[in-house]
Amino acid sequence: MSTRACVVLLSGGLDSTTCLAWAREQGFECHTLAIDYGQRHRVELEAAARVAAAQGVRDHRVVRIDLRSIGGSALTADVDVPKGRDESAMAADVPVTYVPARNSVFLCVALGLAETVGATELVAGMNVLDYSGYPDCRPEFVRAFEAMANLATRAAVQGARFTVHTPLMQLDKAGIIRLGVSLGVDYAATHSCYDPSPAGLACGACDSCRLRAKGFRDAGIPDPTRYANPL
Amino acid sequence: MSTRACVVLLSGGLDSTTCLAWAREQGFECHTLAIDYGQRHRVELEAAARVAAAQGVRDHRVVRIDLRSIGGSALTADVDVPKGRDESAMAADVPVTYVPARNSVFLCVALGLAETVGATELVAGMNVLDYSGYPDCRPEFVRAFEAMANLATRAAVQGARFTVHTPLMQLDKAGIIRLGVSLGVDYAATHSCYDPSPAGLACGACDSCRLRAKGFRDAGIPDPTRYANPL
Repeated sequence: MSTRACVVLLSGGLDSTTCLAWAREQGFECHTLAIDYGQRHRVELEAAARVAAAQGVRDHRVVRIDLRSIGGSALTADVDVPKGRDESAMAADVPVTYVPARNSVFLCVALGLAETVGATELVAGMNVLDYSGYPDCRPEFVRAFEAMANLATRAAVQGARFTVHTPLMQLDKAGIIRLGVSLGVDYAATHSCYDPSPAGLACGACDSCRLRAKGFRDAGIPDPTRYANPL
Repeated sequence: MSTRACVVLLSGGLDSTTCLAWAREQGFECHTLAIDYGQRHRVELEAAARVAAAQGVRDHRVVRIDLRSIGGSALTADVDVPKGRDESAMAADVPVTYVPARNSVFLCVALGLAETVGATELVAGMNVLDYSGYPDCRPEFVRAFEAMANLATRAAVQGARFTVHTPLMQLDKAGIIRLGVSLGVDYAATHSCYDPSPAGLACGACDSCRLRAKGFRDAGIPDPTRYANPL
């Protein structure tokens, strides 16, 4: 078993793309995993494949999990994606774009892939600041997941120790963008919008678009995002 | 939120069918969840639907998760299912029918469904005795999963406490069968075989068939299983 292999959860968005660049910088051999969970913004799956190819990963896999059968989120069910909210409104409550148990499910699939490819390092883009409304983005959740992973698996029974790396946990969006740019990330290949146009252009108004645009402004870095309506 | 609602992971096998009968006996309103994970023994999905209908559940859902993209198990990949092993051989190691992180993934999906339907009770058929080779069947794994669930979810942030019930944990197969018969379970509707015939008949030789047949013998209860080759 290689101790330097990792599985990176890669959505094709700004955060996970930065995570992948971070993992490569660590010297990890990177296996990337995108989850097709019936999300409305399916163009991000194409972005994930583009990013994986651009960064030269060992292999990129897509696992289909039809979370639409469960419902409960604006990202998978027929609930409107909120638009035009300011940051205080985003931070006030768990947002409707929360997908029940999504990060838990995704990390578990990453764990299964890690066992299969002989990796013990998982890398994911959870972040307490911009996504404070998502309970499964908190450090205490990540530690609890690690504890479970180290009891759940054949590899752990045989002595492996799984670690979940969350290099973005304490960064704001501008900090993430600065980190990525320092690692050579081309953010034009990434996709963040929850409600893109049929051509895949960003709406500019959903929470994800607004946080992303503000991040580029705060970082003083030109925003390469292609918007349906220029901001 | 109803405190009496539960989600039962229902594979259509003997164990999970007994769990469902146990949950109904507790007075829980039962939502059942079957996972279509690309298993070879897909006839069990039909058994799950039959069992759910026979036991009058609130609703039955099937979630597709294509774990074949990950591989690593005789149940999902092109690895032969072992046949004709005795119990000491089954207990000697983690079996090739182990699916990496399967129970973790399934419980997480059940957790997401529980959040959506307002349930806090999860019921699953893990068992330390017959399945001692599966690390994610141990009580310490279940407790670690609960700890994670109570940090992962919006419901937990809002004060809910999730509990994973594993009523079969300390029972041997004969004990499970006796419990189910006492609760009125008709095991003819269930399916256990890892390698059924095209007509859905049990092979009688895989680990799962052998444990099931021995359970009926030990319990002194007639085995209603339809075998491809009479035992």
